[in-house]
Amino acid sequence: GAVEVSVRSPLACWFSAMLYCFGGSVLSSLMLGEPPVAFLAKTINILLASSVWYLVFYCPEDIFCWCFSFLPLRLLVAGMKEVTRTWKITDGIAHADIVYKDAWLVMVAVGWARGAGGGLISNFEQLVRGVWKPETNELLKMSYPVKVTLIGAVLFTLQRRQYLPIARHNLVFLYTIFLVVFKVKMMLTRCATSPLAPFEAALGQIFFGSRKTPSKVKGEGATSSNGSSVCDQPSEQHQEGAKKKQAKKTE
Amino acid sequence: GAVEVSVRSPLACWFSAMLYCFGGSVLSSLMLGEPPVAFLAKTINILLASSVWYLVFYCPEDIFCWCFSFLPLRLLVAGMKEVTRTWKITDGIAHADIVYKDAWLVMVAVGWARGAGGGLISNFEQLVRGVWKPETNELLKMSYPVKVTLIGAVLFTLQRRQYLPIARHNLVFLYTIFLVVFKVKMMLTRCATSPLAPFEAALGQIFFGSRKTPSKVKGEGATSSNGSSVCDQPSEQHQEGAKKKQAKKTE
Amino acid sequence: GAVEVSVRSPLACWFSAMLYCFGGSVLSSLMLGEPPVAFLAKTINILLASSVWYLVFYCPEDIFCWCFSFLPLRLLVAGMKEVTRTWKITDGIAHADIVYKDAWLVMVAVGWARGAGGGLISNFEQLVRGVWKPETNELLKMSYPVKVTLIGAVLFTLQRRQYLPIARHNLVFLYTIFLVVFKVKMMLTRCATSPLAPFEAALGQIFFGSRKTPSKVKGEGATSSNGSSVCDQPSEQHQEGAKKKQAKKTE
Repeated sequence: GAVEVSVRSPLACWFSAMLYCFGGSVLSSLMLGEPPVAFLAKTINILLASSVWYLVFYCPEDIFCWCFSFLPLRLLVAGMKEVTRTWKITDGIAHADIVYKDAWLVMVAVGWARGAGGGLISNFEQLVRGVWKPETNELLKMSYPVKVTLIGAVLFTLQRRQYLPIARHNLVFLYTIFLVVFKVKMMLTRCATSPLAPFEAALGQIFFGSRKTPSKVKGEGATSSNGSSVCDQPSEQHQEGAKKKQAKKTE
Repeated sequence: GAVEVSVRSPLACWFSAMLYCFGGSVLSSLMLGEPPVAFLAKTINILLASSVWYLVFYCPEDIFCWCFSFLPLRLLVAGMKEVTRTWKITDGIAHADIVYKDAWLVMVAVGWARGAGGGLISNFEQLVRGVWKPETNELLKMSYPVKVTLIGAVLFTLQRRQYLPIARHNLVFLYTIFLVVFKVKMMLTRCATSPLAPFEAALGQIFFGSRKTPSKVKGEGATSSNGSSVCDQPSEQHQEGAKKKQAKKTE
Repeated sequence: GAVEVSVRSPLACWFSAMLYCFGGSVLSSLMLGEPPVAFLAKTINILLASSVWYLVFYCPEDIFCWCFSFLPLRLLVAGMKEVTRTWKITDGIAHADIVYKDAWLVMVAVGWARGAGGGLISNFEQLVRGVWKPETNELLKMSYPVKVTLIGAVLFTLQRRQYLPIARHNLVFLYTIFLVVFKVKMMLTRCATSPLAPFEAALGQIFFGSRKTPSKVKGEGATSSNGSSVCDQPSEQHQEGAKKKQAKKTE
């Protein structure tokens, strides 16, 4: 529906794209009681993201999108996007640490919001486009990037509170490598099965497995459906994806 | 649907429970332009509320919920919850008074939001669980706790502005007694008829009664349906209720 | 549905009316990370707006609304409302300029939000009344006042950044005259065709016209339907309209 919105109302389309790109910044500002319009003050970033948005949606003959269906270029952009994700998480945690001394839950929450903001406010981003799907949100059915950002936020918070026996730059390096490797692997194999699925299943069994039968059945059902149907990456969201990757790169 | 959500996504369930417990704090922070994540900084409260949430939803054989179906225990917990409500209202009003000198509407609004926050943001709390009922909200059809909190907020604001010839501690005492007595009475008689209904009807007649016929018919219909159908307390929300009571107690 | 809501729940009706009147103030406060309840601190404004709201909805025999169907009075009130719109935009831009030095996008956004706030948050204002129309919002299908406010915000920002060779008071004068003249013309001819439509069509053709055929067809369809069906001003919203005009006047 993104293409139809872009024809009907360029402004709503632009605002939705900006929310997607700068959602992490908006959400973490809101959580810390700071002006959520702060992202508009970085004029350079906005102009770059806007030009990419313009090229994606209004470029004649879709030349821009056609370029980005070239695989190596997509891999490069996706890798750079994952690198910026690490930066965003550590930025968010450092910022929350300044505002709230020693509140590790706040640090995890803000780091997570900063890194995965676009996903977490997807309901409201869709509302701008006139779509409303209350039955789906990223908390109910977390996607892989949101999950991995949460793990990253927890790890970096632990490191900052000195509970992890590892230097900060090492952790940044290892986490970024992990992100990039799995992202590239998922893009190459066109398979959306999360590398975290076994751990989740185990954890769910241990902590929340008291009601075994329904959880087990559901869990297995979900895994099998993951294995079969989700593996073909949805290409209808390709355009939106290309836009987002580029825009992220600009930061 | 809470049980199903707890099996599918523990995180959404946890977040929804936290919003329910700390909704007043989140809403009043938002209204005063302060960081809404402040409640996460009180780590002890969060841990207590989380452990109660865990026991309610994932305790084997539902032992925890079974304990709380024991009536005297429920009465005790409900009473303690009402006591904390008074504290919250006065806290909210005192806080608003510091930020906005002499703005009595702000004081009423913040005190109300602090005391009844969980109810007022119920639409968004439901959204976290994937439920969306736009046609119902606490402003359109106020429940008894929300109404009584509003009355409390008005009373305490009047007292603070020195319009009521009564000492603060006396008002706190009387209001808390009123809350506890009616809560216990409603739990014992399993009847949800509000003790405020006659006053409301009278006020509605005086101030908003210009269109008499529809209002009267509607009002009588509502009253009669209250008397018949609402009197059997809904027990499907029992689990959620037990959780909330406990969590409130922790504060 | 406003009348039904006013009978069922005066509080929701009042809150919805206040959101409509002070939506610009609430939205711009939220965007700048300031307390959104600040509008409640101006007790005089609230009391005036509330009394107008009360008279509109609960006045016996609808005398108040009947008065406002008298055309010259409506024209006067509508004119005054447009004058306050100019003030709001310049206020918002000046305020944003203090908080964010040299961020012209922030200035445009806050000025726009301040001037057209009631329209921009219409989705949430409807939610208070129990109505939820996700498929329509002011960004997707901008109404004339919202569009003209956006243009005003851009113009005043350019003037403030010294890009326009015109004195500030001249621009205020010209813009207000423009607003009032077109508002009165639209009320007298009972025709909602926007005077901006040709410019929009031209701009859309130039910047977003790459996919010519669907956009052209859609645009023409919209224009023709505008010309035929929209020209009879909807009188079902008359009551709400009268309320809003008055309340705006009070500021």
